[in-house]
Amino acid sequence: MAARKTAKPKAPTSTDRKADAPKSAVAARNAANDKLTVDLIKEAAKEVHIDILKERKPDLAFPVRALGNVTYSDKRGYFEIGKQKKIRTLTVNTVKSFAQTLRMMGLSKELVENNDFATKRDAYYQSKNWEEARFDEQTESDTVMDDIEALFSVRGVSREQLRFIPDEHGGAVAGQLIVLDPDRETGVIERIDCTRFGSGAYSIPSTVEHLSFETDAKFILAIETGGVFQRLQSHKFWQTSDCILVSMAGVPTRATRRFVRKLSDECKLPVYAFVDCDPYGISNIYRTLKVGSGNAAHLNQFFCVPKARYLGVTPADIREYQLPTHPLLDVDVKRAKDALKNDPFFQTHKPWQQAIDQLLKMGVRAEQQALAKWGLNYVIDEYLPRKLAQPAQFLP
Amino acid sequence: MAARKTAKPKAPTSTDRKADAPKSAVAARNAANDKLTVDLIKEAAKEVHIDILKERKPDLAFPVRALGNVTYSDKRGYFEIGKQKKIRTLTVNTVKSFAQTLRMMGLSKELVENNDFATKRDAYYQSKNWEEARFDEQTESDTVMDDIEALFSVRGVSREQLRFIPDEHGGAVAGQLIVLDPDRETGVIERIDCTRFGSGAYSIPSTVEHLSFETDAKFILAIETGGVFQRLQSHKFWQTSDCILVSMAGVPTRATRRFVRKLSDECKLPVYAFVDCDPYGISNIYRTLKVGSGNAAHLNQFFCVPKARYLGVTPADIREYQLPTHPLLDVDVKRAKDALKNDPFFQTHKPWQQAIDQLLKMGVRAEQQALAKWGLNYVIDEYLPRKLAQPAQFLP
Repeated sequence: MAARKTAKPKAPTSTDRKADAPKSAVAARNAANDKLTVDLIKEAAKEVHIDILKERKPDLAFPVRALGNVTYSDKRGYFEIGKQKKIRTLTVNTVKSFAQTLRMMGLSKELVENNDFATKRDAYYQSKNWEEARFDEQTESDTVMDDIEALFSVRGVSREQLRFIPDEHGGAVAGQLIVLDPDRETGVIERIDCTRFGSGAYSIPSTVEHLSFETDAKFILAIETGGVFQRLQSHKFWQTSDCILVSMAGVPTRATRRFVRKLSDECKLPVYAFVDCDPYGISNIYRTLKVGSGNAAHLNQFFCVPKARYLGVTPADIREYQLPTHPLLDVDVKRAKDALKNDPFFQTHKPWQQAIDQLLKMGVRAEQQALAKWGLNYVIDEYLPRKLAQPAQFLP
Repeated sequence: MAARKTAKPKAPTSTDRKADAPKSAVAARNAANDKLTVDLIKEAAKEVHIDILKERKPDLAFPVRALGNVTYSDKRGYFEIGKQKKIRTLTVNTVKSFAQTLRMMGLSKELVENNDFATKRDAYYQSKNWEEARFDEQTESDTVMDDIEALFSVRGVSREQLRFIPDEHGGAVAGQLIVLDPDRETGVIERIDCTRFGSGAYSIPSTVEHLSFETDAKFILAIETGGVFQRLQSHKFWQTSDCILVSMAGVPTRATRRFVRKLSDECKLPVYAFVDCDPYGISNIYRTLKVGSGNAAHLNQFFCVPKARYLGVTPADIREYQLPTHPLLDVDVKRAKDALKNDPFFQTHKPWQQAIDQLLKMGVRAEQQALAKWGLNYVIDEYLPRKLAQPAQFLP
């Protein structure tokens, strides 16, 4: 790629938006992260190499990725992977998968060194040139990638640091935030001002590890539907409320969750979730955002947002705001009962048990857009300001 | 909403990015569109009113929205709605739906006048305050909205001009493009430079009617997967190739299709589609992008992108680039045969029939990321440059 600096259709004074100040700090942090990742990969490979030289059978120990190997504590704030390990030893039978695992780790090292990245699909197709170590099905390469991810996660390295990125794009962001994004080749920092997207928004990249932030916002509002996000964005709700809006568009993607987590951590911002009042909104969207999910527990330390709290719509809101409702379906009832019975998160938080009980007794659900009954902008003029005046009342 | 102009975390010289020059032209065009919309709504209402004053039964004639009422011509370039109409006459039995239709048209008029918008969900919940004209189910209000949309579409007014917007968010955009977006309240133009988003991108708003563009790009590349989009964006492919990248993330949403169409029309840009080589990529994603869909034919005049051409991945590419493949599933074969037998678009274009025949004979499909077999950036360094050197060979 030619390192042409100036883009053709240029805004009048585009160059002076680049700030040099934070460049060195961001670059240094990213370089340190990359070095750690490469060192860990080398270390794992070296142990295998030493075993081979000493004519011992080398092995690799992967954390077990299953619900049975998960713990939750309110203090930690997310589902944590447990101590169970599966050992893969190099034998005649495992030679292929062992070799594939090492090749995949080698790919990761290359990617870090070249400042590049690969999706699961990319990695699968890359392997087609690995001769005998090639994967026949993508499910095989996905499993190996998940194993490597789990292996390094116990050392605090995320999949994104290994440069394996999801194929899905991230959510949309608008509001009181400047994203600092160093150029892949030159390292020059691009300052992206999320107040300057008009009715559009900033689309979160697949991986966000290299980003840093500047903000004076007071909180992050994570919104379930594109419709409500568009309303708050077009009416510049972020301006009157000093906040950052994030559109989750349903269950947030990994990139969106990581972005919110990183932003919340680095800028010490509370995160308020604004979703539909139904078991899906509560136990899938909100719970996943806050504490993560059970079957990918090795990810939660990077992806969950323990600072998240539930602004609404609450079961109590349905009554207070006389919202139009729909009856709970069987699947809703099942999901709610399941949350009460089996989910360590809801079991830890009494207010949630009461709220879900109340919802089950009422037998109804309400969408966030139900507030439009009182006027399309009631959500902006009345509901959110009233809620935001009493954050202590948000559900945990 | 307070009209506070300055956002808190401010880029050093953020104010001078606003250009005054195009403001009046954009504002004038948008105002003219809005006036036309309101005039048409008033006219339709007036006819009803006159009938009532003259003690005649008023009626409204809606185009029939069904595959049977669709035509396709290569010249027009999209599926067009036919002349069949259904007449709704005000009688004792139809009084409720007649009233609801008029209220919905009234809502549209209000939205245009207040420069606001509503999603289908918003409109449904709004109706809860319409007393006897309230909708009991959202499917009812959706149908009424679709009818109104079809009614006005024959006069050249789109749903977005009526200010009814989709709930889904749009795709991501990066590259040689400045989007001009007038502020909803002040009319001040925000200049959004899509070369300046680092590894992130511009997220298309739900409605794009008010946008205009500045670009020197040579073409628009519409990409199926988020993974390939991220690769081309992170490696600044738009810079070396003078283009605009659009991530469709599967079948493009309405907002994405409208954005690409408007951009292509107003800036006279060709659109090249880069999707998986399988019947879904060809007949769902590409066909929908180019000529629209059958069951929403009244939309196609606004949403289809007749200038689109199919860059790849083609069945011929699978051989030429020796791509890793997957066998066609039954559903793929069925979809391909269906396209050949029933789809007027593929029936019109011989090269497509040959390509689909070839794919069926080979019995395989290939993903765009299969090019990663030759290296992760082979797509950037080899495949796309070779293809772009011969646009005449793109499929129609």
